[in-house]
Amino acid sequence: VSSEFELIERIKGRLAGRAERVLIGPGDDAAVVQAGGVIVTSVDAFVDGVHFRTSTSCFSDIGHKCVAGTLSDIAAMGARAGELYLVIGLSEQIGEQEALALVDGAEALAAQLGASICGGDIVRSAQLFVAVTAVGHAESRQTLVTRSRAKSGDLVGVTGELGGAAAGLALLDREIEGTQDRIAEALRERYLRPLPQLAAGRALAEAGVGAMIDLSDGVASDALRLAEASGVEIEVELERLPIQAGVEEVATMIEREAIELAATGGEDYELLFTCPEQVRERVELAMNSTRTRLTWIGTVGDGTGVRLLDADGGVRDLRGWDHLQ
Amino acid sequence: VSSEFELIERIKGRLAGRAERVLIGPGDDAAVVQAGGVIVTSVDAFVDGVHFRTSTSCFSDIGHKCVAGTLSDIAAMGARAGELYLVIGLSEQIGEQEALALVDGAEALAAQLGASICGGDIVRSAQLFVAVTAVGHAESRQTLVTRSRAKSGDLVGVTGELGGAAAGLALLDREIEGTQDRIAEALRERYLRPLPQLAAGRALAEAGVGAMIDLSDGVASDALRLAEASGVEIEVELERLPIQAGVEEVATMIEREAIELAATGGEDYELLFTCPEQVRERVELAMNSTRTRLTWIGTVGDGTGVRLLDADGGVRDLRGWDHLQ
Repeated sequence: VSSEFELIERIKGRLAGRAERVLIGPGDDAAVVQAGGVIVTSVDAFVDGVHFRTSTSCFSDIGHKCVAGTLSDIAAMGARAGELYLVIGLSEQIGEQEALALVDGAEALAAQLGASICGGDIVRSAQLFVAVTAVGHAESRQTLVTRSRAKSGDLVGVTGELGGAAAGLALLDREIEGTQDRIAEALRERYLRPLPQLAAGRALAEAGVGAMIDLSDGVASDALRLAEASGVEIEVELERLPIQAGVEEVATMIEREAIELAATGGEDYELLFTCPEQVRERVELAMNSTRTRLTWIGTVGDGTGVRLLDADGGVRDLRGWDHLQ
Repeated sequence: VSSEFELIERIKGRLAGRAERVLIGPGDDAAVVQAGGVIVTSVDAFVDGVHFRTSTSCFSDIGHKCVAGTLSDIAAMGARAGELYLVIGLSEQIGEQEALALVDGAEALAAQLGASICGGDIVRSAQLFVAVTAVGHAESRQTLVTRSRAKSGDLVGVTGELGGAAAGLALLDREIEGTQDRIAEALRERYLRPLPQLAAGRALAEAGVGAMIDLSDGVASDALRLAEASGVEIEVELERLPIQAGVEEVATMIEREAIELAATGGEDYELLFTCPEQVRERVELAMNSTRTRLTWIGTVGDGTGVRLLDADGGVRDLRGWDHLQ
């Protein structure tokens, strides 16, 4: 117990408070934060061997990725990033240096995004795990975007490029040779150190999109969740999916289609959203102003579920691509 | 993964929203909660074999205790209980019924305390763990009580009775016979299903106490943390500690002193606080009005650390009592 106290003290020394609204940071019974309107809270847990592997991710990358994945939910609501709370379950194999590297990775991303790590807990565990609580802020519920307001006739858009995380993991997993170039490095980076689309999320919310979700499991799964929450059917034209550079080549190497990695690979943490035709131009301007690539990939219709259409209009049945196979 | 989605759906069906401020509960990317002033957030993690054992606690009790332990930090700030977020790491040995029983235990305590479980995550893990995020609310920072404002000359008070949780665990651990009576049952209950002192915490904050902490590790450890945070010395007169009925008998059975269990047993989740003499009467009235037992156990002086004094004024060196020895 005593060494955990010491570790917590060392961790506190590495965390910077960076927002006036944080009135009391780590170290008391609880953190105290000024809240002007509504708070937006998401909790995500990551377990060694399930959500990441210490063989492919260094500890700094693990800290980065756990924070990124949780803040991605805040981005998908259109909220501003606020506070983070970090629970770390430390296995015996993991020393203080590794634990601090994990915190440093989390803190560096928090700094980049203007978020503050305000508390947490360190416990002993048979298996390394990280549980992150992310709190975002917004003026009111009306400024936020849920999953449940997609309407028949809406357009479906997506930010950024897809398939990069799955391709990066494939490269890391298979230690594929001859891929030490910049494109391969970008794919590995995409998997190891994803970035939540906070600025794009807020801009999309302000532009008036109807429904939004982040792509943690891939377009196929996440569009289905949005469709179910909204009670609509979403049609996605697969050939429109914006494929990251290099994904095609990696897909060929591992005998998959690029479209599979883009639609079902997951962990790209881009945003998928719907909006009425009359909001289209505002969305395009908003994405321009945040320098975010925007692609219109489909439409919302009556019905339920998701239809993935290939180039000749046939329906594809893409099953989830198992990341850790 | 699919079965985890189903489990999450079943869990959502068992959770009630019970506060107007919860605008969006579980099921979207994040929960959305109206916040009028400041939010008070604490995160605690509990691991099987470290913080509880499935051999002595049923799953409902585990859910109860994890929520109680986390809300105890909110009580120690003098805030109102608000929202809870529950991460459960499920090992393969644990089936859906056990997971739901854990959630039911958490939800029942949340209901009793007016808190709402608004989200969480379920992950696979080698070892059962529970991480709880508790969010409390208060008008402003000024209405809250930290650990750091104890002043030389203050009185030190404690709510309720001590030693019960440690004695209860001793009974459970050693399966001591001849203790099936009501007092023994109350001790076991004290360990298995503690109650956070939310009403007392708010009343103490309103009465104007200077510093406060909850007794999760015992008077000896927790008073030390408060003393260190405040830069003062705390003197505790051990014979004044309010000992729960039956603790004396259990202490004798296991060849310990009752005072050891009361001062270092921990997990009683009572509140320890300091206040100037002139606030004493207001504190006594506040504890009367919330029907909370109040005991003055010591004083704050210049210096640092904690001095535990026995009846004849000698300083005792009570080491932490290892719960899971």
